[in-house]
Amino acid sequence: MTTPDISADVVVVGAGFAGLSAARELTQRGHDTIVLEGRNRVGGRTWTATIAGVPVDLGATFVGPTQDAVLKLVAELGIKTMPMHAEGTSLIRWRGRVRKYHGTFPQLSPVELIDLGRVRWQLNRLQRRVRLRDPWTSPNAATLDTMTLQDWLWSIRATESTHDLMAMMSLVTWGCEPAAVSMLHAARYIKAAGGLDRLLNVKGGAQQDRTLEGTQQIALQMAEELGDRVIVNAPVRAVNWDDSGVTVTADHMTVRARLVIMAIAPAHRAAIDFQPALPSGCSELMQRWPQGSLGKFFVAYETPFWRRDGLSGASLADEGPVFSTFDYGPNVGGPGIMLGFTKSRSFDPLSPQQRQEQVLASLGCVFGPEAWHPIDYIDQTWATESFAPGGPTAAVPPGSWTRYGPWLRKPIGPIHWAGTETADEWTGFLDGAVRSGRRAAAEIAAKLSG
Amino acid sequence: MTTPDISADVVVVGAGFAGLSAARELTQRGHDTIVLEGRNRVGGRTWTATIAGVPVDLGATFVGPTQDAVLKLVAELGIKTMPMHAEGTSLIRWRGRVRKYHGTFPQLSPVELIDLGRVRWQLNRLQRRVRLRDPWTSPNAATLDTMTLQDWLWSIRATESTHDLMAMMSLVTWGCEPAAVSMLHAARYIKAAGGLDRLLNVKGGAQQDRTLEGTQQIALQMAEELGDRVIVNAPVRAVNWDDSGVTVTADHMTVRARLVIMAIAPAHRAAIDFQPALPSGCSELMQRWPQGSLGKFFVAYETPFWRRDGLSGASLADEGPVFSTFDYGPNVGGPGIMLGFTKSRSFDPLSPQQRQEQVLASLGCVFGPEAWHPIDYIDQTWATESFAPGGPTAAVPPGSWTRYGPWLRKPIGPIHWAGTETADEWTGFLDGAVRSGRRAAAEIAAKLSG
Repeated sequence: MTTPDISADVVVVGAGFAGLSAARELTQRGHDTIVLEGRNRVGGRTWTATIAGVPVDLGATFVGPTQDAVLKLVAELGIKTMPMHAEGTSLIRWRGRVRKYHGTFPQLSPVELIDLGRVRWQLNRLQRRVRLRDPWTSPNAATLDTMTLQDWLWSIRATESTHDLMAMMSLVTWGCEPAAVSMLHAARYIKAAGGLDRLLNVKGGAQQDRTLEGTQQIALQMAEELGDRVIVNAPVRAVNWDDSGVTVTADHMTVRARLVIMAIAPAHRAAIDFQPALPSGCSELMQRWPQGSLGKFFVAYETPFWRRDGLSGASLADEGPVFSTFDYGPNVGGPGIMLGFTKSRSFDPLSPQQRQEQVLASLGCVFGPEAWHPIDYIDQTWATESFAPGGPTAAVPPGSWTRYGPWLRKPIGPIHWAGTETADEWTGFLDGAVRSGRRAAAEIAAKLSG
Repeated sequence: MTTPDISADVVVVGAGFAGLSAARELTQRGHDTIVLEGRNRVGGRTWTATIAGVPVDLGATFVGPTQDAVLKLVAELGIKTMPMHAEGTSLIRWRGRVRKYHGTFPQLSPVELIDLGRVRWQLNRLQRRVRLRDPWTSPNAATLDTMTLQDWLWSIRATESTHDLMAMMSLVTWGCEPAAVSMLHAARYIKAAGGLDRLLNVKGGAQQDRTLEGTQQIALQMAEELGDRVIVNAPVRAVNWDDSGVTVTADHMTVRARLVIMAIAPAHRAAIDFQPALPSGCSELMQRWPQGSLGKFFVAYETPFWRRDGLSGASLADEGPVFSTFDYGPNVGGPGIMLGFTKSRSFDPLSPQQRQEQVLASLGCVFGPEAWHPIDYIDQTWATESFAPGGPTAAVPPGSWTRYGPWLRKPIGPIHWAGTETADEWTGFLDGAVRSGRRAAAEIAAKLSG
C-alpha cells in the first residue's frame, strides 16, 4: 500500500449536513478530522441556485418547530429564516377539475372528508405503537412490514379519493408511490416527525420556515469553519479497515485515520468497496434501502400573481409531471417564485426544454394562463445525480426494517454510520441529518477518549 | 484526463461467464476486446476449490438439459460432465421429525400431497401467461408484481406444509424467503427455466449434471483463450461516457474503448460511478434489484456412508442453518462428499469453527452421527463478498419488474448490459449468463459493423 496523503484521527465521508455536523462536533472536541466529499461542492442534498436574482433551494428547503438540532445550528451560525407564505386558498387539480381548499388536506366532499379524517386518525393511532429506535421490535412490526402503505389503505377500506391524496403525500414525502413503501417505514417516519400534521403542515409543521439566503448556506458556513479539513472533488472508492484503523481511498488521494464516519445515504454505501467485506446483513441492507425519486423546479414571475386572487400558491395535482407546488416568494414587491415537485419517471427523461414546457403547462392548468409567462426557470432532477441518485430520502420497501434494520447504524469495527436515514427524530429531514452526525460524533468521541 | 493505458474496440467489465462469453464472441469476430475483473480470479459466481483432493464448486455447479448455450460451450471447450448421484431415498427434517421421500418434493401426507400438487399445477399454469422478454406487459403483470410469493400462496390458500416446502424452494432458488420475492419475478424465473420440474429436478432438470473438474474450469479456459486481454485485480470504479465512446477507470489503470459491456449483477452496477449519470430509471433499478443471500458448504467423508443405507444424500430441512443437501460424490470408492446450502442471516456472522460445528450438527440430525466425523470441510459465504455480495442471483422484490424492468438491459449510449439476470432463458443460471454475454456481444457487433 502506498503512503497515505493525509493522516487524521477521524475521516468523514460525505460533506452533507450529517458529515459536516459530525466533523464540526469532533473538531470542537479537539479531534483531528478530515471530510472527503465526492461532489464539487458541500451540502449534499441541499444545493442553492439563483433565479431572477433570488436564491432558491434545489434540494432540502424547509425547517419547522421541534427540529431543534437544525434550528440550534441555524442560530449558532447566525443564519436568518423567514416563514413560508401560507395565506390564502389552495388549489387541487383532481380528476380533471380544479377545486379550492384550505389547510393541508383538500375537502373533496363531506363524505370524503369523513373518510380522510378516519384514515388520518387511524394512521396517527398506529404510528404511536411503533418504536423509533428499533422499529423491528414494535408490537405490530411483523404485520406492518409485510404491507405497503397501499396495502394498508386497502386493508382499512380507504376511499379512492383518500388513496389519491395519500399517493400525493407519499410522492412528496418519500418520492414513491404508496405501493413502494413499507407501512412500518411510513408509520415510523410519521412518528419521527412528531405526527402527520407536523409532517405535512406549513404553519406549525415541517414546511413552516426557510432560510433567507438558501439552505446550502448552512453547509457552506460549517465548511468554512472547517477550512481545509473539507476536501471536495474527492469521491471515495474504497475503505480498507481493521481494528487499528481505516485507509480511505478517494480519487487521487488516500486518508489514514483511526475511525471513519460514512455520512452518506444507505443506498450509496453500495458504491464503496469495503475491504474486508462487511458482514452480510450490512451488504444486504445497502441493496434494500433505495432512495425515492423526486424532481424539483422553481419558476419566477414578475409578481406573485396568484396572491392577487387570494391564492396561497400551494397546490396538489393527480396528473401531469407537477404534483405539488408552494409559494416560495421572498418578499412583497419582488418577483413571484413558485416551487414545485415532479415525478421522476416521466419527467427526468425529457430534454430541459421539454421539462420547462411541461411544468408551465401543468401550472397553467392550475393557476391559469399567467403561469405560461415566467421570467426565469430552473429545475433539478435528483435521480440523475451520481451520488445516491434519487431523493429526497429513502423509500424503504417492505421487509427491510424487520430483516436488516439492526444493521442500519451498527458500527462495524472502526466504521460508523450517519446520514438522515439513520436518525431517530426527523428521519429524512435536515434536522435528522444534523442529529445523525452528532450521534455518530458522540460514538466516535467515546471511543477516542476511552 | 490522463492518457488511457489501453485502447480497444470494446471493454468488458466483469470476467464471469457473461463477460467472458461476450469477450470470446467479440474476439472471434475480430473485435479488439479487453476484460477488466475486480477479483483476483476469473469465474465470477463460479469458484472451484478442493477438499479431500476433490475439486468442488463453491458457487454455481450444475448444468442440465435445455441449457443449450452453456452445454455448447462445455462441448466446444472439451470439458467433461458427469451426472449427479440421484439414486435412493431422500430425507426431510420437518417439524422436529426426519422422514423419507422420493423425487423432488416430499410427500408429507396424502392430503398434503394433494395440496402441493394443486399449488404446483397453479404455478405452472400461471407462469405460462408471463412474457419472458418483457414481463411487465404480461396480462397479469400488475397484479403479480404487487404480491410476493408468500402473498400468492396465501391468496390461493396453500396449506402450511406447502408454504414450508415453497420456502425451501425459494431459499435455494433465490436466496430469500417467499416474502421477499415478487410473484411476477418468481413466475418469470420458473418460466425461464422451462417450468417448475425443470427448475427443481436433478434427473431431467437443472441439477442433472456437473463438470468433473469444477465449473470454474469453463471460465479458466475461456480466459486462457483470451490471454492477456483479461486483466484481474482491476476493480472498475468509474465509467465516463459519451457518444464517441467510454473511458473505464479501474484501480491503477484506464481503458478507452468505443463500447462497454457491463457484465455484472444489476445491484453491483451501483458500485460504479457513471459520468454523466445514467437516466433515473437506470439508477432506480440498481437500488431495487438486490441479490439474494445463500451460503454453500462441502463436507468430505471417508465414504458416502448414506448410500449404504439406500439414501440419495439429498435432504431438506425446515430449521438450522443447513436447509438443503445433495450428494456431490464423484466416484465409487472415493471419498463421500456432501454439498449443502445455508441461510446467510444466521450462518454468515459465525466464526469458521462455529460454522463447521453447526453444519455437522445439522447433518447429524438428518443423516445420523456418522455425519459428525468428516475428513475435510469448506464453505463460502457469498454475502460477505466484495463484488455483488449475495447470491446465487437477484431476489427481485415486488414493483421492480413493472416499474424498472424496461431499463434492465436497455443500452445507454455506448453502455450495454449483460449478466445472467438480464437473460430471457435460464435467468439466474450459468446458461443465462452465457446467453446474456452472447446477446450483448451481438448488440455490440451490430453497432461496430453498422
